[in-house]
Amino acid sequence: MKVCILGIDGYLGWSLALYLKNRGHNVWGVDNGYRRSIVNRVGSDSLIPILTMEARRKLLADFYKGNIATSYADLKQMFTNHKPDAIVHFAEQPSAPYSMKSVRTCVETQVNNIVGTLNVLWAMKETCPEAHLLKLGTMGEYGTPNMPIPEGYFEIEYRNCKDRLPFPKQAGSWYHQTKVTDTNHIAMACNQWGLRATDIMQGVVYGAHIDDAENEPVWWTRFDYDECFGTVINRFCVQAALGMPCTVYGKGGQTRGFININDSMRCFELSMLNPPKAGEHRVFNQFGDLFSIEELGRLVCECAHKHFGLIKAEYGSVENPRIEAEEHFYLPECVQLRNLGFRPRNFNDELVKLLGACVGFAKHAKPEAIAPKTKWR
Amino acid sequence: MKVCILGIDGYLGWSLALYLKNRGHNVWGVDNGYRRSIVNRVGSDSLIPILTMEARRKLLADFYKGNIATSYADLKQMFTNHKPDAIVHFAEQPSAPYSMKSVRTCVETQVNNIVGTLNVLWAMKETCPEAHLLKLGTMGEYGTPNMPIPEGYFEIEYRNCKDRLPFPKQAGSWYHQTKVTDTNHIAMACNQWGLRATDIMQGVVYGAHIDDAENEPVWWTRFDYDECFGTVINRFCVQAALGMPCTVYGKGGQTRGFININDSMRCFELSMLNPPKAGEHRVFNQFGDLFSIEELGRLVCECAHKHFGLIKAEYGSVENPRIEAEEHFYLPECVQLRNLGFRPRNFNDELVKLLGACVGFAKHAKPEAIAPKTKWR
Repeated sequence: MKVCILGIDGYLGWSLALYLKNRGHNVWGVDNGYRRSIVNRVGSDSLIPILTMEARRKLLADFYKGNIATSYADLKQMFTNHKPDAIVHFAEQPSAPYSMKSVRTCVETQVNNIVGTLNVLWAMKETCPEAHLLKLGTMGEYGTPNMPIPEGYFEIEYRNCKDRLPFPKQAGSWYHQTKVTDTNHIAMACNQWGLRATDIMQGVVYGAHIDDAENEPVWWTRFDYDECFGTVINRFCVQAALGMPCTVYGKGGQTRGFININDSMRCFELSMLNPPKAGEHRVFNQFGDLFSIEELGRLVCECAHKHFGLIKAEYGSVENPRIEAEEHFYLPECVQLRNLGFRPRNFNDELVKLLGACVGFAKHAKPEAIAPKTKWR
Repeated sequence: MKVCILGIDGYLGWSLALYLKNRGHNVWGVDNGYRRSIVNRVGSDSLIPILTMEARRKLLADFYKGNIATSYADLKQMFTNHKPDAIVHFAEQPSAPYSMKSVRTCVETQVNNIVGTLNVLWAMKETCPEAHLLKLGTMGEYGTPNMPIPEGYFEIEYRNCKDRLPFPKQAGSWYHQTKVTDTNHIAMACNQWGLRATDIMQGVVYGAHIDDAENEPVWWTRFDYDECFGTVINRFCVQAALGMPCTVYGKGGQTRGFININDSMRCFELSMLNPPKAGEHRVFNQFGDLFSIEELGRLVCECAHKHFGLIKAEYGSVENPRIEAEEHFYLPECVQLRNLGFRPRNFNDELVKLLGACVGFAKHAKPEAIAPKTKWR
C-alpha cells in the first residue's frame, strides 16, 4: 500500500514509518520540523537522542520538507505524484498547554492545525478522492460527559424523535478545539465530497519506541517530557527516574484512556487494511486501558520501586494549572478496533520498558522543564 | 449603555448603530471594509445606495477602521479605552457560497472568522471580562436534524445516564462551520474564563432598512442580492422586481427561519438589556417565521402580483448548486426571546415594504449576478 505520513518527523510519524516499511508498505512523508523548533522554544528537547531531520531524509528517500498549512500547491503536487492509497495526518501542533499560553500561541495552534487539515481535504478532493484519510484526533474532543462516550456518533431520542447525530464535543483547550473543528470539517468533506476517512480519537500514547526500533538507534523516535509536550505518563516516568515526586495536577481523579505505542501502530495498520467506504466518516476511539491520574502515579511509583530500586519515587500533587473536572464519570467505548482484532498489551509490562528507557536517559533530562508553568485561567 | 459594534459597516451593523443611538445608547464600532470589497470582487454591489465608509465615519464619531482578525493590539486598545458594556460581534465573512468556491476562499473565510472571534475573546479576557458579548451565529449551525432543535443545549438520556450537553451541530458549508467553531470557542471562554455571552443563532434576516432609517438616506444600509451575498429572500424579491422567475434551488422543501430586520434589532436590544450572568454561554435561537423555500417563492410572487402589478413574477426552479436536504423535518425552538417580550412582525406586511424597495431600486440591479455559479461539489 502507498502510504503518505504527514508529520513524519514526529513521535508517532517516525515510528509509523518504520512499522509500515517493515510490513512491506511503500511509505513517504512530509514534515517542516515544527515540532523540533517549538519544543526548543519552550526550553526543552527530546529525552532520547534522535537523528537530525537531514539524516532522516537520507535514510528515507521520500521524506519531503514542507509545511502543509502554508504550501497548498506543494501538497497537491505530492499527492498527484505519489497517488497515495492512505494518508495518515499527524501534522498538527499537539500541545494543550502551549495553545493556552497567549493569544499568539492560541492563534498559531488554531491556524496551523485547522488550515493544515483543510488543505489536506481540498488536495484530496482535487487529486485523490478515493484515498483513505487517517486523521489523528484525540479522546479529549469529547471532554468528560456524564454518560458513556460512543465512537463519534450516537442514536438518540429527543422529544419523541430519533436520529443518529454526532456526539457533542466539549474540548477543554484551544488545542483540543482544533481537533473538534477538524472532525467537523472531515465529516462535511466525507458527506459532501464523498471522501472516506477514519477519524481517530486516540488516548494518551506511551512507550519509548516500537519493538522494531529497539536495537536500531537511527529509528528511535522523539520523547518529550516537558510541561507542554510531555504527556502525563512521560512526565511521571522522568520524575520517578530523577527521584522526584510524580506530581499529579489537583485531586488526580481525572481519568483518561492510554495506549501503548506498539498498539497504536497496530491500530493504524488495522484501520488502513480495513478502510471505510466512499463518503464514510468513521470515528474510532483508540485506547487500551483507562486510569485515573492518581492510579497512574501509583503504578509508576510501584514500578520504580520494584524494578529499578528507585525507593524515593513517590506520588505528589500540585495545584491544577488546568480547568478540568478532577472527579468525574468516564466510560468511553472502544468496540470497532477490538472487532478488527486489536488486543491491548499488558500495561505493567510495557511500563517497565518505558521506565527503563527513562532511567537510561535520565542524565539528559532538565528537571526544571517538568513543573507546570502554563495556567488555563 | 456603552456598545461596541464589530462589523459596524455591514447590513446589520449599520442598522444596529442607528437603532441603538436612537434609543439613547453610546455606540462605537470597528470595520475594515471587507464586506464592500468582497462583494465587489464577486462582481456585485449593494442594490440600495449607501454612504462611503469615510462619509459614515464623519457621521458617527467613534467608527474605527481596523481588522479585528489581524490587529489584536488595536482591538485590545479600543476595549481598554472605551470600556464597553456590550460587544456585538458581526465582523465575519457571511457568505456560504463564497466559502465553497476554492481552497483560497475557504481558508480566507475560516481564518478571518475564527481568528477574529478568538481575538475578541482574548481581548475581553484581558481588558473587559465583565462585558457582555453578543455574537452573531446562524440557525445553519444546527443543520436539519430529524428532531426539534433546542436553544444550544439539551438534556438527554443515553444508556441510562443523563446530562445537559451542547446540541450536535451539522453545518453544511465552510462558512457555517466557522460559526460552529466560534460557538465552541465562546462556550469554552465562558466556562474557563468566566466571560458572559449570548450566542445568537439567527435565521435569515429580511428587510431593506429599519423603520428609523426610512427617511434618512445617510442611514440606509447595504442590500445584497447576488448569488454569494444575497439571501434567498433578497434574490427572490429582486428577481420579481425585474420580472424574472424566482428561482428555487432544487425541490424547494428546504425550510428555514426568517426574521425581519426591525425584529432582529429588537432582539439584540432585548439580549443587551437582559445579559447573561458571568460564566454563562447563553444560546438564543432568533427568528420569527418558518417557511420552506417553495412557500417563500409563492409568497413573494403573490405579493408582486397583488401589490405591484408584476404579473410576470413567477415561481421557478434551478438545479440545486448546494448539497442539502431538500425535504426534511424542521422544528427549531425559539422560547427565550419570546419570554423576554419578542413578538415578530407580520411577514406579509413587511414583505410589501421590502419588495417596494426592490422595485424602486431595480434599475441598479445586475440580473446576471443572481444566477448560482458556485457549486458545493
